[in-house]
Amino acid sequence: MAQVGIGIIGFGVVGGGVVDVLRRDRATIAARTGVDLDLRAVVSMPPYQSTDVLGATLGKDIALITQDAQIRIALLLVGGTTFAKDLCLACLKAGKHVVTSNKALIAAHGDELFAVAKENKVAVAFEAAVAGGIPIIGALRDGLAANRIESITGILNGTTNFILTMMEQKQWGYQQALSEAQRLGYAEADPTLDVNGTDTAHKLAILSRIAFGIRVPLSALRIEGIQNVTAQDMASAARLKSRIKLLAMATQRPEGLELHVAPTLVPLDHPLAAVHMNYNGVFVVGSASGPQLFTGQGAGALPTASAVLSDVIDVALGRAEQTFGSYGFFNQPKPPAFLAEADERTASYARFATPDKPGILAGITQILSVRGISIRSIYQGETDDQGQASIELVTHPARGGDFLEAVAEIDRKGLTTAPSVCYRRL
Amino acid sequence: MAQVGIGIIGFGVVGGGVVDVLRRDRATIAARTGVDLDLRAVVSMPPYQSTDVLGATLGKDIALITQDAQIRIALLLVGGTTFAKDLCLACLKAGKHVVTSNKALIAAHGDELFAVAKENKVAVAFEAAVAGGIPIIGALRDGLAANRIESITGILNGTTNFILTMMEQKQWGYQQALSEAQRLGYAEADPTLDVNGTDTAHKLAILSRIAFGIRVPLSALRIEGIQNVTAQDMASAARLKSRIKLLAMATQRPEGLELHVAPTLVPLDHPLAAVHMNYNGVFVVGSASGPQLFTGQGAGALPTASAVLSDVIDVALGRAEQTFGSYGFFNQPKPPAFLAEADERTASYARFATPDKPGILAGITQILSVRGISIRSIYQGETDDQGQASIELVTHPARGGDFLEAVAEIDRKGLTTAPSVCYRRL
Repeated sequence: MAQVGIGIIGFGVVGGGVVDVLRRDRATIAARTGVDLDLRAVVSMPPYQSTDVLGATLGKDIALITQDAQIRIALLLVGGTTFAKDLCLACLKAGKHVVTSNKALIAAHGDELFAVAKENKVAVAFEAAVAGGIPIIGALRDGLAANRIESITGILNGTTNFILTMMEQKQWGYQQALSEAQRLGYAEADPTLDVNGTDTAHKLAILSRIAFGIRVPLSALRIEGIQNVTAQDMASAARLKSRIKLLAMATQRPEGLELHVAPTLVPLDHPLAAVHMNYNGVFVVGSASGPQLFTGQGAGALPTASAVLSDVIDVALGRAEQTFGSYGFFNQPKPPAFLAEADERTASYARFATPDKPGILAGITQILSVRGISIRSIYQGETDDQGQASIELVTHPARGGDFLEAVAEIDRKGLTTAPSVCYRRL
Repeated sequence: MAQVGIGIIGFGVVGGGVVDVLRRDRATIAARTGVDLDLRAVVSMPPYQSTDVLGATLGKDIALITQDAQIRIALLLVGGTTFAKDLCLACLKAGKHVVTSNKALIAAHGDELFAVAKENKVAVAFEAAVAGGIPIIGALRDGLAANRIESITGILNGTTNFILTMMEQKQWGYQQALSEAQRLGYAEADPTLDVNGTDTAHKLAILSRIAFGIRVPLSALRIEGIQNVTAQDMASAARLKSRIKLLAMATQRPEGLELHVAPTLVPLDHPLAAVHMNYNGVFVVGSASGPQLFTGQGAGALPTASAVLSDVIDVALGRAEQTFGSYGFFNQPKPPAFLAEADERTASYARFATPDKPGILAGITQILSVRGISIRSIYQGETDDQGQASIELVTHPARGGDFLEAVAEIDRKGLTTAPSVCYRRL
């Protein structure tokens, strides 16, 4: 059995996970797949003091990989989009295939990297960039290759899903849940890119490229995070037999592609409602396959290493080159045709803080009715000590712009005592 | 773009689905994957009168495929293991790759077919043989290639899952649910191979080969069907916050592999409990990936066609040949080391029909206790008009043989008035 030389760039959580899997299971993987992975170099800044990298050379110079003729595949396991991009280009130009877990890099610079890879007759693979250990890229690219993808609805960020799960199960506020996530290592010290939806958006852009063959400029994505979700919102959702999840959604409509990231009410009987804690879930509807759900751990050393190494094996077997060379979406992404937010079609939830006087409910329902928005369910709680009442409702699917205009009018006309709270509902 | 010639053998539900997908989406698939699929022949007995097979030649002679030099891939979409095997061998010997949905064929004759394929430098692919449109073969083989698979727990037969769902939701008996399944086309006129677990066992054998690298002789599989599941069993399961599902299970233990098909109590908080109706679900635990769930439609014309065509594209791109040539489990399956039923380790459920007299519960618990079986929960209903009581319990995991011996002793000692009912519990 021939050995396949590999080099790791970035010896953090994921790099450490890859080394752990190879330490334990190199022989098992070789027996199973016919691919014997020989780790020859680990490039890392700062250079770690670890003495156990399976006999590989440990250093900080990328030449350890680019100038080693025995290394066929570079595992690019660092974050960011500047230094990481330079390293990626250096490897591709040296004729090394690149396997990466860096979603921001692929989302922001995929076009350029894929073109350079093609020039140098090597492949770029990135299963680990989306949904950790869940083989969702392979499923969309290969398993569902004969389908037109009709929609993708994903919980793609374990940090935010953990926070929302804590808020729901413990009735905590956002800050308390975030602190707990940080304490347990599910959220970083600076959680901004997770909680504001950016990380989820990167993943949605990558999935959309594979599913719909389009390039998605990140600037074109509408992104809402979870920072403003309150304990009251969670309680409202529960009353309406729903949970709030941060969803990435891509839906093909006759008029174009709906694409956004937003906290959304997910009814309890939808399969994604059961995706808890730090798990990820991707719900895909294919024209032939029908609806499918994929769930699993979306981050962490070993799940991500599982995805990285599946790509490494795919490359080592020569499979990735064929995919990469043949599939249109790597090199000829179609121009995107996105729907504006106003033109999206969605069911919605709104909570109105209302004064306790006659005619309020009639006023609200009249404004919705004029725009052709029909109400699916409605809930009015007891009036509180301050004479405030709360009216909550869920609509049937309607044009999103019409709903938002209606709510704006409701607020403007003085039917509410505070700005209304709105969410999409799945 | 080069055309890839394909031929279909068997123009039933699945063959029709493949033609439907090609009719609608041939150009889309070509643009996406770089593979333009040219259907050149449809071989079917009886020869259908349909005039629309996309211009392909329609006939009953396999030579339409084996002797057409333009056809690279034969889609073997007939059932059974005798005639289908001859057709498969004829195609392989003619140098055609074979893509098949026939699970019985692969389960029974995989070794021989893989060997002949290897001699003739072609591949056999069978994503459609398990779980219909769910790309579970690809996920296990490629996506989780770097994992030792620790367990597979699957709902792999849509017919039985539909029947069990109807029994649960409508409180029907088995016969009424079966009739409804037949009326709706989810069950065949002769449903034997579905309801007795044979179809599920074929699929378990195939998944086990890929996941554990072993050959599974069908004779080595313990198979229980759903024919004896009663409305009372369903009600008991519900009371214990569980549902009864027909599960295929493969669990790697230090001492060997546990492998069986059996109706099993699935707690409501387990992801497989939410796999309803005719859906399939596969719950896989990998050493690196952790737990993952895949769900979707496990049968039907279009979902199965989705899987068939994903294999066809994999073959056409040259990817399947590399997998087939390199992966150990196709050509060097390991000798299996199965655990005997008595040595399986499982939580269990039992329902005892007991006379209403003192000492019964003490007797039952004493017999379990002596064998080291500890009770997780217990339920005793009201005594009925005939003086019969019912005691139900769920145990913590224990050696299966010890539990069955205990129940046999309980029945033998006259503590019950009818043979006790037992199920595994997940």
